Amino acid sequence: MDTEDKSQKQKSGTDSGSEARLGKITTPHGEIDTPVFMPVGTQGTVKGLTPERVSDLGAQIILGNTYHLYLRPGHELIRELGGLHKFMNWQHPILTDSGGFQIYSLGALRKVTEEGASFQSHIDGSRHFISPEICMEIQEALGSDIMMCLDECVSYPANFDYAEKSLDMTLRWAKRCSVAKKNDHQALFGISQGGEYNTLRRRGIEELIDIGFDGYALGGLSVGEPKEVMREITAEFTPLLPEEKPRYLMGVGLPEDIVESVHHGIDMFDCVMPTRNARNGMLFTSNGKVVIRNARYREDGSPVDSECDCYTCRNYSRAYLRHLFIAGEILGLVLNTIHNIRYFMNLMENIRDAIRNDNYRAFREDFMSRLS
Amino acid sequence: MDTEDKSQKQKSGTDSGSEARLGKITTPHGEIDTPVFMPVGTQGTVKGLTPERVSDLGAQIILGNTYHLYLRPGHELIRELGGLHKFMNWQHPILTDSGGFQIYSLGALRKVTEEGASFQSHIDGSRHFISPEICMEIQEALGSDIMMCLDECVSYPANFDYAEKSLDMTLRWAKRCSVAKKNDHQALFGISQGGEYNTLRRRGIEELIDIGFDGYALGGLSVGEPKEVMREITAEFTPLLPEEKPRYLMGVGLPEDIVESVHHGIDMFDCVMPTRNARNGMLFTSNGKVVIRNARYREDGSPVDSECDCYTCRNYSRAYLRHLFIAGEILGLVLNTIHNIRYFMNLMENIRDAIRNDNYRAFREDFMSRLS
Repeated sequence: MDTEDKSQKQKSGTDSGSEARLGKITTPHGEIDTPVFMPVGTQGTVKGLTPERVSDLGAQIILGNTYHLYLRPGHELIRELGGLHKFMNWQHPILTDSGGFQIYSLGALRKVTEEGASFQSHIDGSRHFISPEICMEIQEALGSDIMMCLDECVSYPANFDYAEKSLDMTLRWAKRCSVAKKNDHQALFGISQGGEYNTLRRRGIEELIDIGFDGYALGGLSVGEPKEVMREITAEFTPLLPEEKPRYLMGVGLPEDIVESVHHGIDMFDCVMPTRNARNGMLFTSNGKVVIRNARYREDGSPVDSECDCYTCRNYSRAYLRHLFIAGEILGLVLNTIHNIRYFMNLMENIRDAIRNDNYRAFREDFMSRLS
Repeated sequence: MDTEDKSQKQKSGTDSGSEARLGKITTPHGEIDTPVFMPVGTQGTVKGLTPERVSDLGAQIILGNTYHLYLRPGHELIRELGGLHKFMNWQHPILTDSGGFQIYSLGALRKVTEEGASFQSHIDGSRHFISPEICMEIQEALGSDIMMCLDECVSYPANFDYAEKSLDMTLRWAKRCSVAKKNDHQALFGISQGGEYNTLRRRGIEELIDIGFDGYALGGLSVGEPKEVMREITAEFTPLLPEEKPRYLMGVGLPEDIVESVHHGIDMFDCVMPTRNARNGMLFTSNGKVVIRNARYREDGSPVDSECDCYTCRNYSRAYLRHLFIAGEILGLVLNTIHNIRYFMNLMENIRDAIRNDNYRAFREDFMSRLS
């Protein structure tokens, strides 16, 4: 597998005061500047926004959920209609996850064996089975630019023996994904597991590298572990991921976690937080969080964030957004989502600027001091 | 009250084969080409759409609901924040209704006396009172371009004595509105009542004209009467409304009712149908209605209406819209609403073109024949 041909090479532009790095990922649907945050489009839509809006806000790549799209409307239908890009009218890169995390989240509704994962649909209880080979087939039908290997997540805390057995199976699954993958234009990333055990994490990464992937993700985080554990694993193991390939911290996260992880050399992030919190009326701002339904905003004619350049902040008051939220108006969810996505995109732009200016250490210190 | 100064004069451009007429209404927020359809923005938003989108779709004026805005967020708050236009970021004309129809719809929760209407909020049961004078005060606080007189709707069928007493009170209320109105830049329209009784309708219109308004509406329709009754009243009484002033058929309606009413000389319409039906997955097309959740559209890669130029039809398949609807995605409601609003705006453009080309009779016949 020639990484040059597949253009997944991470061009290094490392900041001197940290491991933070600038890069570009080239895909069939365009280039991505890293570090990058991927808004989540679970069911073939970034909830509430047109694709043009998502792109205008600065999003370069979105994440699609294989589990959800497989169940509804079905990957075969999406393939027949020209693939996920055409189906949802998004012309830019798409990364699809493997469905592993969603299947893990089903709890008692799933059963994992060496062959693959059996589970019941959260929608209608129907029974399904996904193997590493089927997982590749589904993501190839969706036609994403970057596919993820099927993996097994382990809960936190995990028994060592279970974590080790699971890791070994995830590595065999990674190999099966790599073998099953049929075409060259879609990239495939491996996912590091091993729970909170350093020896397992280390061996897992080494064996993933031996198989060889277009990029590498730290997985099995955001499963209930203390934040310190997530940060320690990121700090410890990001440097072990190949320097010339994209490094992806799955499911992260909070702005401060992004800033911290970029410091250790992470290139890619995804999280439902900006979109989900927007729908719950929680807005990110340069001065902390705003809970828009709060009575203090009832007569507040100022924008959500006076430092923000987004459509919502340029045109609407907190009082109006509060009114829409309390009245249950769709437009409230839309305007909140626009703002939160823009907040994350702006954060990533600032991160990239800081690295470009060889100023990331100071940027990080300033960002963290503003939080406290 | 000088109608020329207030620019509410209806410039006649009558079609030779019908009473259909072209016109312009000038307001502080711009001109409106009539016949016009006003999308409904009940709570300070046309549900699901940004104001720019509403305008881009061809909407020249929207309707705001006084009853809803009075209760939430409150007209005083909207005044303090610069008026409804600024509050909701809509730079074009707004017509506000009087709240009379919403209060009528509350049924047992309202009590009407000569002084005004007492009612309980549908939101929290709180008690309120609106008189003609308060109704003007609220609409002046909202700052709409066109205000409506407070009226009492009567149910269908109505007892003659009750309808007559109610009409007389509505006429006294109309006079009180006219007297209470404080400023000149907002127009005020009178509303014809009288139920299904021709003698009452006739007298009501004559007395409204004696008071003198900037425009005249046929009210008290769409209250459960057979469609024939609505059409007969429109046919019979539209010609009695002053020719040089805008004529507004409130709460109408279906595309065929609009086409028919324009034929009789109506200039203005409003209805929740395009937006509400969109949210229920019912789409208007040049070939009849499409119920998007229908299984027949599961694999349908074609647009909702191949003759439609809207954003939704240019970019998305029926299969995608069906998927979004079934998955409960906000974007589905947004895309459906875009299409339905555009359908109505396109209908009005075609109506105006037909009148301009002195071809309305043929247009109407063609439109009606397509329905059957």
